[in-house]
Amino acid sequence: MSSTDQIITVLKLEYLFKGCSDDFIGQMAAQGRIISANKGQVLFVSHDEAAYFYIVVSGWVKLFRETLDGAQAVVDILPTGHMFGETSLFENGEYPFSAEATESMKLLAVPMGLLQQEIENNPKMALAMLSAMARYRKHQDREIEHRTLQNAPQRIGCFLLRLADQSHEGAVKIHLPYDKTLLASRLGMQPETFSRALAKLKEKTGIKVNGATIEMDSLDQLVKYSCAACSSEFPCNDLPACRKVE
Amino acid sequence: MSSTDQIITVLKLEYLFKGCSDDFIGQMAAQGRIISANKGQVLFVSHDEAAYFYIVVSGWVKLFRETLDGAQAVVDILPTGHMFGETSLFENGEYPFSAEATESMKLLAVPMGLLQQEIENNPKMALAMLSAMARYRKHQDREIEHRTLQNAPQRIGCFLLRLADQSHEGAVKIHLPYDKTLLASRLGMQPETFSRALAKLKEKTGIKVNGATIEMDSLDQLVKYSCAACSSEFPCNDLPACRKVE
Repeated sequence: MSSTDQIITVLKLEYLFKGCSDDFIGQMAAQGRIISANKGQVLFVSHDEAAYFYIVVSGWVKLFRETLDGAQAVVDILPTGHMFGETSLFENGEYPFSAEATESMKLLAVPMGLLQQEIENNPKMALAMLSAMARYRKHQDREIEHRTLQNAPQRIGCFLLRLADQSHEGAVKIHLPYDKTLLASRLGMQPETFSRALAKLKEKTGIKVNGATIEMDSLDQLVKYSCAACSSEFPCNDLPACRKVE
Repeated sequence: MSSTDQIITVLKLEYLFKGCSDDFIGQMAAQGRIISANKGQVLFVSHDEAAYFYIVVSGWVKLFRETLDGAQAVVDILPTGHMFGETSLFENGEYPFSAEATESMKLLAVPMGLLQQEIENNPKMALAMLSAMARYRKHQDREIEHRTLQNAPQRIGCFLLRLADQSHEGAVKIHLPYDKTLLASRLGMQPETFSRALAKLKEKTGIKVNGATIEMDSLDQLVKYSCAACSSEFPCNDLPACRKVE
């Protein structure tokens, strides 16, 4: 597959670009490029001028902010197929967070100006962007709610449920997508809190933890424990369909 | 002032409607109505069909969700001039939370269909809505960050700073806008945690608490303590200009 064809494949998987004209996709593909980043490489820092938006082609990216006293708040950890940086358009053209590769990874970088023009000139694109922002708002709402109402073991249980195929019945095996330190920071916990909470979750639900693999007889064990402290019902209705870039 | 004139005044204060045509403002005023609500009155429940969006004319409204095991997560508590319910447009036409009057209050209710049409037909309105969503996203980002990195006394200090005139130098008096139980739930704390945290904040910063009035020699006392655990610098750059409906 040529680089341009690969870029077009990546762009067409992004929800925001469903229904976009081939012309616009073509423009983005012509000006976009696939870049590589090594583990720990910083892609940009909060308040940098936002020249590009990105889509993760492979690997994971960590979005974070740093406080004055040096603590790090992880905004999100995004897998393959997810876009980031695009809302800088509404943040005075500055990235509202920093971004770092959590492992060797590939990204598609597309000049922001293209997206800005399309949103300003194409009402359909503005509406698609509004829907995307609304989905993200829901995601944040849930995050705030859970940080208030769920205890640490329930939050881990919720995270696992959201990784699983929620329509699956019977025994389940879930693989943690990245290491436990990163997972702890994604969930807003200290590593020690995370370890204690995972032990408590095992005790409460009977799940089995084997390194990065979690096994259970059925998802029900987690649902009963974690979803009791959530305002949405199981299965979660805000999960995006799986997005894989081949 | 006639009811229509009052409605127009309320609408024109809303940031989203800056730059709207008089024609559209007139249509909203013609179809909008001012309603009263008593303390504790539920305006709508999460998942109700979203027929109206609202602007607070006087008093405070509490937005919340309830979990399966009966706990309440306060999404926000909004004062005069703030709009809510409008993002239901992007939530399958359902309210994503419940709303309750925290005291005797007045609200402007406007049919959602009007706003939907305007967003679909007027690109400027779609862009204005995008900016509004981006501002809200920033607000939520900060909320998630603070729930992770600030301890309870720092969160109270931050809340007080955001109530104050941040350009003020010298001695400051801040009035709590609603009772301490509500304030605790707004900050995602149990009432007992709130009381202990307020005592700790007094000890750490030397502020004086007198019922619903908080006094201090200068805002610096709170800034040093709370803003150290925040990724933004003081003064906060995301505070909306004060919006008062006369």
